[in-house]
Amino acid sequence: MALENIRVVLVDPQHPGNIGAVARAMNTMGLDQLFLVRPREYPSYEADRRASGSVDLLQRARVVGETKEAVADCRLVIGSTARSRTYSLPVLDARRCGQMLVSEAATGVQVAVIFGPERTGLANRDLDLCNYSAKIPTSEAFSSLNLASAVQLIGYEILMASLAASPDADAEVAPTNGPDAYPSQAEMEFFYQHLARTLDERKFTIDERREATLAKLRRLFGRARPRQREIKMLHSLVRLMQRDEDS
Amino acid sequence: MALENIRVVLVDPQHPGNIGAVARAMNTMGLDQLFLVRPREYPSYEADRRASGSVDLLQRARVVGETKEAVADCRLVIGSTARSRTYSLPVLDARRCGQMLVSEAATGVQVAVIFGPERTGLANRDLDLCNYSAKIPTSEAFSSLNLASAVQLIGYEILMASLAASPDADAEVAPTNGPDAYPSQAEMEFFYQHLARTLDERKFTIDERREATLAKLRRLFGRARPRQREIKMLHSLVRLMQRDEDS
Repeated sequence: MALENIRVVLVDPQHPGNIGAVARAMNTMGLDQLFLVRPREYPSYEADRRASGSVDLLQRARVVGETKEAVADCRLVIGSTARSRTYSLPVLDARRCGQMLVSEAATGVQVAVIFGPERTGLANRDLDLCNYSAKIPTSEAFSSLNLASAVQLIGYEILMASLAASPDADAEVAPTNGPDAYPSQAEMEFFYQHLARTLDERKFTIDERREATLAKLRRLFGRARPRQREIKMLHSLVRLMQRDEDS
Repeated sequence: MALENIRVVLVDPQHPGNIGAVARAMNTMGLDQLFLVRPREYPSYEADRRASGSVDLLQRARVVGETKEAVADCRLVIGSTARSRTYSLPVLDARRCGQMLVSEAATGVQVAVIFGPERTGLANRDLDLCNYSAKIPTSEAFSSLNLASAVQLIGYEILMASLAASPDADAEVAPTNGPDAYPSQAEMEFFYQHLARTLDERKFTIDERREATLAKLRRLFGRARPRQREIKMLHSLVRLMQRDEDS
């Protein structure tokens, strides 16, 4: 992963709480390069409070006086904007933005995504530093994302793009032995036979429906993919269906 | 768009500010059905303040005493969790979660995504109401998403799925009525009660294991997502477990 080559630049952030919330949002998405252009108030208690577990990242933020200093060494700069048209810049959606940042950062170069002040967004002179603009899809009726939410969403698409490049870490892998293992097909078959015998004994279905009913039960349980411990429990339920010898 | 069929359920939210921030996050993504289960403080000034332009949505939130009341009429319930494994429920990532909610809501049925309290996440008894769990991909080093950020990201994937030009060809669409429809959560609950009563009558589990065993059975059947006709068949199987009156 090349997330360390991706920086987040906040231009003229007005509320210190937002700076802290941005640090936390970045941290959850594996980003840690934060640049602040003319923050109105920084460092600040409120920023630290909202950073909640990400104060380190916040304290390492680099503070500069001009946007162009923050992106001087970047080969790709994307400006986040609420506008769906940006004068003479192509507009990416958040997903494409994340993919582009990740694929270029993976080549070893520095890349940046920049965010304007809370009320007004990026000024034209900041967009002039950008290669693309990015717009996060929102409801048409209400598009007022706060600054930290915008960073959260772009950060999420960056993380998703970087995960797409690596094997699926979250894919659940069942153990191959023990109570959480999946049963073999033979073990499933053993359960189905137990169930079928019991249903026959109890005359559960009339003859011509028997096969269809058993097939439906196989689908239902096959879909659930019971683990070994669950199969054991299901066998116990089937035993309950059997006519008591001692009743 | 069928976003009005998708509800967000917050279980035991502890901080009124978070409830407000969730309302705003939902609104930006075109969602407006908010359910609150036992909110610690609601309505509240702090919630209104953080809702910032979304106070209407917040005021229309429905407050209930139990999670199951919030999802009783839902055909698909997904529980958001920070765990990458949920015992016996399949784990979706946020993207798949959004796609699934949108494609099922588009058929006209009610669907829900539920979020637990800030510190502790969803309790097992709430996951027992779910068909799937959803985990938002995060940095492995720091995965502490706040509640509103989690809703923002799931909401974003819901909006993205609803904007996707082509309907999800892979998604199986269940009819909304008849034997192939999914049962409502209340109908599932009726089945679980039938099963529980029967198991009690047969003294299936010793006292201290009773709840755990019933929870495991809920997960197993929740995961299988039986259709109406299958639920009918399962009720018949449960009747087989009952002691014959005439034997």
